[in-house]
Amino acid sequence: MTDLASTSDRLGALGLRRATLLVDPRRARANIARFAASARAAGVVLRPHFKTHQSAAVAAWFRDAGIDRATVSSVAQAAYFADAGWDDLTLAIPANPREVADYDALAARIRLHLLADHARTVDALASGLSRRTSVWVEVDPGYGRTGVPWHDSARLVELVRRIAASGRLDYAGLLSHAGQSYAARTANAAAAVFDVTLHRLRQARSALGEAGLAGGLLSAGDTPGFAASPDWTGLDEARPGNFVFYDLMQLAAGICAESDLACAVACPVIGVYPDRGEAALHAGAAHLSRENLARGRTEEFGRLITLDENGFASLVAGWSVSRLSQEHGLLSARGESARAQLAKLEPGDLVLVVPVHACLACEQFASYRTIDGGELPRLRRL
Amino acid sequence: MTDLASTSDRLGALGLRRATLLVDPRRARANIARFAASARAAGVVLRPHFKTHQSAAVAAWFRDAGIDRATVSSVAQAAYFADAGWDDLTLAIPANPREVADYDALAARIRLHLLADHARTVDALASGLSRRTSVWVEVDPGYGRTGVPWHDSARLVELVRRIAASGRLDYAGLLSHAGQSYAARTANAAAAVFDVTLHRLRQARSALGEAGLAGGLLSAGDTPGFAASPDWTGLDEARPGNFVFYDLMQLAAGICAESDLACAVACPVIGVYPDRGEAALHAGAAHLSRENLARGRTEEFGRLITLDENGFASLVAGWSVSRLSQEHGLLSARGESARAQLAKLEPGDLVLVVPVHACLACEQFASYRTIDGGELPRLRRL
Repeated sequence: MTDLASTSDRLGALGLRRATLLVDPRRARANIARFAASARAAGVVLRPHFKTHQSAAVAAWFRDAGIDRATVSSVAQAAYFADAGWDDLTLAIPANPREVADYDALAARIRLHLLADHARTVDALASGLSRRTSVWVEVDPGYGRTGVPWHDSARLVELVRRIAASGRLDYAGLLSHAGQSYAARTANAAAAVFDVTLHRLRQARSALGEAGLAGGLLSAGDTPGFAASPDWTGLDEARPGNFVFYDLMQLAAGICAESDLACAVACPVIGVYPDRGEAALHAGAAHLSRENLARGRTEEFGRLITLDENGFASLVAGWSVSRLSQEHGLLSARGESARAQLAKLEPGDLVLVVPVHACLACEQFASYRTIDGGELPRLRRL
Repeated sequence: MTDLASTSDRLGALGLRRATLLVDPRRARANIARFAASARAAGVVLRPHFKTHQSAAVAAWFRDAGIDRATVSSVAQAAYFADAGWDDLTLAIPANPREVADYDALAARIRLHLLADHARTVDALASGLSRRTSVWVEVDPGYGRTGVPWHDSARLVELVRRIAASGRLDYAGLLSHAGQSYAARTANAAAAVFDVTLHRLRQARSALGEAGLAGGLLSAGDTPGFAASPDWTGLDEARPGNFVFYDLMQLAAGICAESDLACAVACPVIGVYPDRGEAALHAGAAHLSRENLARGRTEEFGRLITLDENGFASLVAGWSVSRLSQEHGLLSARGESARAQLAKLEPGDLVLVVPVHACLACEQFASYRTIDGGELPRLRRL
């Protein structure tokens, strides 16, 4: 029996019949253990970002590894994990003045940390929160998304002074997301982003010190930078998220190994077109997201992986998801071996597709399954 | 007050505080009425694709326009609309042999139509269904996604014979989705796709006739082709879906007018960066999807529209959503007018973003709101 056929049989034995996100818990736990060890070695608090999985069941694997603080990016995620017993959460997106009452309700239940990069946001928090709440100033370390540019000392000083003057907010420190590491094409380039970010955070903190202000803690968070850096010393807190599952984007950039890939979408084959070298899946953008690995003219939305008795096994050469519409995906078979496998595929077979971006694929499901059939519930869309 | 400021005030008055998909019912009903009239004029059954909205409340607007049959693309959608009283549904994706028991349960409740383009699928349906069920043969009219190529007479004849021989399946006719019309850059190009599709479907039906088989009905479905074609005569059934809301992709291709755009995502501003000409939204790929209008190097994920006392008003020149991560979106302001508006934006303001692809943006929400504050429930992710 070929690897594709035995993978299909194993997926069928799990009772799967439509697109289903599968997690290999052994691999996810190993990814967690590696990051927990790096954090311990550097004396850094690991506060993983739970937006990747949004699952209390996956979060429990972090707790098993000694992690008791986490990062989220919406009120809904914070409330969900608070319900699951997580009592120390950072909402790592600039606070939204419209949601201050929601923050206040959360802060009554858990130790909540918010972000600000604008005077108006600080004022809205100071006037709307009924209890002392921790606030980080977000620093842009060169990514150009949110945060005060690391070199804008005047604005950093003004914001920290404004927080202190509010009488209602506790200044926590400087927090950044060096998302430019996701554009790195090698682990070395991602490690360089990590080093530059640390340097820039320290420079921002020095500017506060020169103005007679306490600099606070330093927090950074992006999977590529942390995965590629052997030593996290110098930071106080690490907030990566994607590393729990990894994906094709991280694999392509040399950030993870093939054996670290911990989630994939089981998809039913619904059409086979040997003349075109293609098969159709009932799995489209509604399941895999439209995150595209190959920018530009060609597109790539996923690759096949096999499943054996130990869990996820190996990527299958020659196969990729080359086109997506809302509910349909097209698998392309290139090369002799993949074409021979294609000749044996039939509607009703199941294949396992590693997504390009795990966080976005996970967003598309209301629960996941483990490779031994267990269910992993997650936050439902509100 | 500027248009952006009054739009923010109107959105705030609806009580919105986080990313929320808003529908303008007047525009959506007008879009429905136009398509219903075209169908009536041509004597074609309009069987709209409900995957776009997946909402029983929106479906009720179709019923108000005299539509009582619909198209869906998953068992979950079929069950949801069956619960809402839709008793004649086509599941317009090649049937999945793993879901035959689900189809059988649906067929016990409603008049269900399935699709097949492979002998194995026909056999699975014939052996697994307990009652006579209607089956269309899917024809690929040149899109290259699913279906038997329109010119492959031998395979078409074989499939239709196999359906007839099953004793369990009722052959309905030839069904196609000319998705290549979505790549058309003008309405004329989309209309040409429509004409070619009709011609190819007729050619396929003639081949069946020459083999002594009844050709059955002809069904086609893609918004660009139908919107661009003045006369649908020659088809029996039309299955477009996107036209209820339209989006930037259809606008850019000249398929709809600006005044037809009927859904947009209200998004809170959480950061303002005048030096970069940008503002940050708490609305990312998790809300807008990663569907990208400008393929290649630059990216575009949405544009701003204003809201006035009548509903959605006008696109705002100079603004676009130029970058997305999972929860963050970056708005770019280009040109003097947009830069002047940017200078007045503050965290807590609300903006209204027209998505690139309405179907995929709608997938990201568990319910929608109308511009007068009503709630439109939709199918929840299973």
